[in-house]
Amino acid sequence: MTNLLKDGERLDDLEMKGYQIIQNPNRFCFGMDAVLLSDFAKARGDVKAADLGTGNGIIPILMSARYEGVHITGLELQMESADMARRSVIYNNLEERIDIVTGDIKDAANLLGASSFDIVTTNPPYMIADHGLRNRDDAKTIARHEVACNLRDILTQSAKLLKVKGHFYMVHRPFRLAEIFYEMVLAGIEPKRMRLAYPYVDQEPNMVLIEGIKGAKSRITVEKPLIIYEKQGVYTDEIYQIYGKQKDE
Amino acid sequence: MTNLLKDGERLDDLEMKGYQIIQNPNRFCFGMDAVLLSDFAKARGDVKAADLGTGNGIIPILMSARYEGVHITGLELQMESADMARRSVIYNNLEERIDIVTGDIKDAANLLGASSFDIVTTNPPYMIADHGLRNRDDAKTIARHEVACNLRDILTQSAKLLKVKGHFYMVHRPFRLAEIFYEMVLAGIEPKRMRLAYPYVDQEPNMVLIEGIKGAKSRITVEKPLIIYEKQGVYTDEIYQIYGKQKDE
Repeated sequence: MTNLLKDGERLDDLEMKGYQIIQNPNRFCFGMDAVLLSDFAKARGDVKAADLGTGNGIIPILMSARYEGVHITGLELQMESADMARRSVIYNNLEERIDIVTGDIKDAANLLGASSFDIVTTNPPYMIADHGLRNRDDAKTIARHEVACNLRDILTQSAKLLKVKGHFYMVHRPFRLAEIFYEMVLAGIEPKRMRLAYPYVDQEPNMVLIEGIKGAKSRITVEKPLIIYEKQGVYTDEIYQIYGKQKDE
Repeated sequence: MTNLLKDGERLDDLEMKGYQIIQNPNRFCFGMDAVLLSDFAKARGDVKAADLGTGNGIIPILMSARYEGVHITGLELQMESADMARRSVIYNNLEERIDIVTGDIKDAANLLGASSFDIVTTNPPYMIADHGLRNRDDAKTIARHEVACNLRDILTQSAKLLKVKGHFYMVHRPFRLAEIFYEMVLAGIEPKRMRLAYPYVDQEPNMVLIEGIKGAKSRITVEKPLIIYEKQGVYTDEIYQIYGKQKDE
């Protein structure tokens, strides 16, 4: 099966249902963000999900591992990333559960179909693309900075993709929180649940997980803190659980 | 000095600079919210502050105790509460540092002066005044529910009261967070700092402290969690510090 790998790529074990993922260290590799999002985004029953900016397909693959009934369409602008994602889907025999579409998030509703998804997930670029930014065509830059699309594009398209009462799940950086809520309300995706992830209990959070519901009333549940590390190099019990591991493994 | 007390009122020791406050258990009595807000709202130097919905004047009095240079105008709709606040100001000899104005938050800029404050503080009613609400004229109802004014009124008036780059400080309930950020951005008071207060480290937060700056750019700092209790009946060190006490006192 290693003939699915191209030069510079490697196969990483997700340690979940035996699934593997093809990654290229010169491009964007998945991090804890994607793992936390796939745990936070509950996909119960036979539901249709879209993952916007899917990269190498990590979120569709993790979601497939966690939730039995979900079908996911991953949308990715960069051809090379979409190609890696497709090969990972084949490698894991997930062709019937995951489609990878190459295309622009700004065209998502046209490409994937309006009002046709129960769930939208996204691990979007976190950083604002300011004028000083170089290498705007670089794969990592596009994955990390809002060069090709911004928060408003993602929320506008997510609102179009979702059915009424459909669920939107996003992982982002806390420093964008006010803008995120503002843009969600504007797009008609009401923020309903939020969890902040703190590296340590006495530090500022570095990730935020957000659930919105299209057309819902205003009222948000802020969940208990998600603490990542108990001490240097040792995850908390909850993080081990999310990774599906025991502490002593 | 107890002739300043009316029937049904009591004098509570704030255990801060010897200040006392007049309260009436049949009306709204201050809680930890006000104490946390007065600590969170930094008032450095000779600054002018307005406190919207000041009740019995707890926030102006706590702010006077904490910050030497601040002058505060407390605005209160309910005559009886404003009257209690005025008597507490006299009792503590704070007439030169605190003014209490009786009036409606919706008229705040007309009553107190537009663009004339460095700081606005508010511990507003937390609950939405839905149609089922009874006793709409009751003192506690007005303090707790958005009967007399709502979040938008408070933010619109705060934006008018503040100078450009003036600071807005509010304590509220986390379930309103999305609406709070949306309304702040709409009013031109950009959310810049937030801290969630959790009763215990493994529970949902029940208070949120927010700082906004009029006319600032979008970017918020989410601070480390503020944990209230170490165990049942025992505050964390930080809460003792905020109250200005030692743990064994």
